[in-house]
Formats: sequence, C-alpha cells, structure tokens
Amino acid sequence: MHLRERQAFTVYGSDRVLGVLRANPIFNVLAEDCVRRETIPLGQSFEPRHVDGSSSGLDVELFDVPGKVALYLETGSSPDQLAGRPGDTVGVEIRSGGERLVYIPGCAQMTDGLKRRLAGASVVLFDGTLWRDDEMVRLGLGPKTGQRMGHMSVSGPDGTVASFRDIRVGRKILVHINNSNPILVDDSAERAMLSQEGWEVACDGMEVSP
Amino acid sequence: MHLRERQAFTVYGSDRVLGVLRANPIFNVLAEDCVRRETIPLGQSFEPRHVDGSSSGLDVELFDVPGKVALYLETGSSPDQLAGRPGDTVGVEIRSGGERLVYIPGCAQMTDGLKRRLAGASVVLFDGTLWRDDEMVRLGLGPKTGQRMGHMSVSGPDGTVASFRDIRVGRKILVHINNSNPILVDDSAERAMLSQEGWEVACDGMEVSP
Repeated sequence: MHLRERQAFTVYGSDRVLGVLRANPIFNVLAEDCVRRETIPLGQSFEPRHVDGSSSGLDVELFDVPGKVALYLETGSSPDQLAGRPGDTVGVEIRSGGERLVYIPGCAQMTDGLKRRLAGASVVLFDGTLWRDDEMVRLGLGPKTGQRMGHMSVSGPDGTVASFRDIRVGRKILVHINNSNPILVDDSAERAMLSQEGWEVACDGMEVSP
Repeated sequence: MHLRERQAFTVYGSDRVLGVLRANPIFNVLAEDCVRRETIPLGQSFEPRHVDGSSSGLDVELFDVPGKVALYLETGSSPDQLAGRPGDTVGVEIRSGGERLVYIPGCAQMTDGLKRRLAGASVVLFDGTLWRDDEMVRLGLGPKTGQRMGHMSVSGPDGTVASFRDIRVGRKILVHINNSNPILVDDSAERAMLSQEGWEVACDGMEVSP
C-alpha cells in the first residue's frame, strides 16, 4: 500500500533480507529520502523509533527460525537450495511493560531452541499455513507440500498443536493461514479441535490487549 | 492478485517489458508452467487466446506512446535517461465487431501520429493522472511534476482536453487518475468543465457496452 505514496517509514530487516532488497531495482520505488532501511542483527534487541525519531517504548528482537529461502529466490529444489541462509526466515519478539509477544508467521519445524524462546510468552502469533502437509496436493490446488514451502502443519504428531502442548504461553493465535486450511471455516471439525487445544484463529482487524 | 495463486493466464507484452520481467527474479513468482509470457511486436495485430487455447474473438495491437521509463528503472533524471525505449510505454487498441477501443493509461504528450490512431475510435480510455502539471508540488505531496512522471495534464493549452478537441471519437473516458486530481470530486468545478467537454471519469466496476 505504501509503494510510491511518499509516506515516511522505516524498514527494519535482517542483513540477508535488506541485501535482497538492495540487489533488486524494483524496491527503488521506496524512495531513499522517504523510506529508511535499517539492518538489525539477529538476536540483539533494539528499539524501533517513530519516523520523527520519538521513542516507540518497545524492545524488539529478530531471531532466526527454521524456514526456507523466498520463493522467487529459489535456485533449485534440493534441501540445501531450499534451506536458505540465516535471516531468510525470522521471528520477532516484542517486549513492553513486562509482557512479551512472539510473532512467527513462517516456521518449518519446532526446535528446542524455539521452545525455550516461546516459553512464558504472553502472546504467540504462529504460522498456521496448512492443516496437513499434503492439503494442497489433495485438493488439487498445486503440487507443493507444506514442507516444500517451509511450513510445518497445524495438525499431526510433529505439528504445531502437538508441539505447543508442553510450552506454557498465554494466548496462542494462528496467523498466515492459507485459503485451503479448514480452520478458516468457523464450524469445521478442525476449528473445534483447535479451540479445544486453546488456540485462536486470527482475523482481519483483530486486536490483542494485555 | 494472481501472484503465487496458480491461476493460469498469459502475460502479453512488448519485448522491452518482458525483458525487464525476465531480468528480475521477483517475477519468478509467476510460475512458468502456469503463466505464459508472450512477446508482442509493436504495431502488429494479434489475437489473444484464452488459456485453453480457444479464440477470444479480439484483434489487438500494441503501439508505442510518448512516455517514460518505469520509476524503478530510472538511472537519472536527464530527459534522455527518463525518456525510455520503444515499448516502455505502450497503448492498446482492441478491435471487435467493427468497434475500436483505444486504451492509453500513460501518455507524456499528444502527437500527430497518436491523433491519427485515435481518430474514429468508438471508445478511448486515456491517461487522466493530473489536472495540472504542478498539482502535486502545489499540494505539498511531492516534488514531481506530471511531465517528470511522464504524464501530460488534463487541463491547459497542451493538455488532454484541448488536444482531443479536434479528434472525433465516440466516448472519451479518463483513467489512471491520481488521488490529487480534483476531477475525482463529483461536484468540483474541474469535473463540471470535463463533463461539458464530453469527457467521462472512470470508476471502479465501470462497464462499457457497444
């Protein structure tokens, strides 16, 4: 929405992602004198500022997450080629007033390190792309599985719901949900299972209050 | 809207534009097995086909129009650097059942050649970006004039309204209208002047019937 509109803002990103933007002329539509780009090292907290320089009062950290290189940067489909580099897929931790929100819209698998990061969070917004790995293939929507796209599934023994059972967090909310995912249907069996496990499904305009 | 959605369609374009797409990896999101790209020589008619290969019944021609290189491909702001190459800015003429529609969403100036092309068209959809050349500067929206952006203005002695006075066409409709253009306000003086000159202003969902 902001392209070419001359609304000042700052793009915070990993060195990897900002390098991709620098290398592609199409992102020059974000005029340098209007849109600042700031490289954020992974694993270090920083305070984003409003464009007038005033404090946001937030303490923010980017961290690497198991994922995949961006679709348009794929050079082949071997695991090595798809895995991406550090900073290709990141999560964001936002801390303020003693509360902690963790935002992970894409995640290829749960790890012990990620569990430690998530433990005790007030709110987690997590990758809810597919209900099951072969969902798009079965529906005839495309040949790719969730794993091929860099997303763990919501259901299944290694899925998101199972992985979160031993992580204590406040609210758990699924985001980045593909249109093939049955949890988008309010009265689906999958949605009911999800609710029983204490998960919410994000919706347009959702607001989360402390 | 179609990015990554695996809806089959064909991109028809000038050699220049399809070359720009080929050179930029971000357009690889349009999967080759799903979105075909077809180079169309300027000034030659062709029949676009539906993705199943069936006939569209349309006779279409791309033609060069005075314009500008795309914003993100600018290498400097001298007239030479901005002018672009053949195929950077094109119009489209669509013929069917004896009717002729000419679509020119961007045009830097009216030429005699363009007037000959437009003469006798059933419908013209034409560049309505700005009312006056310095409109965005005066409103404090940005430093660029219409000419700097490759657009002639609607008003003024060399503007669109004046240029069309000696061209006989059926319906004349302005498209590609910037949000700073007062013709977007239904009861503005500029809109009234436009109507008196026989011009219409396009709107979302507009349909044009023979």
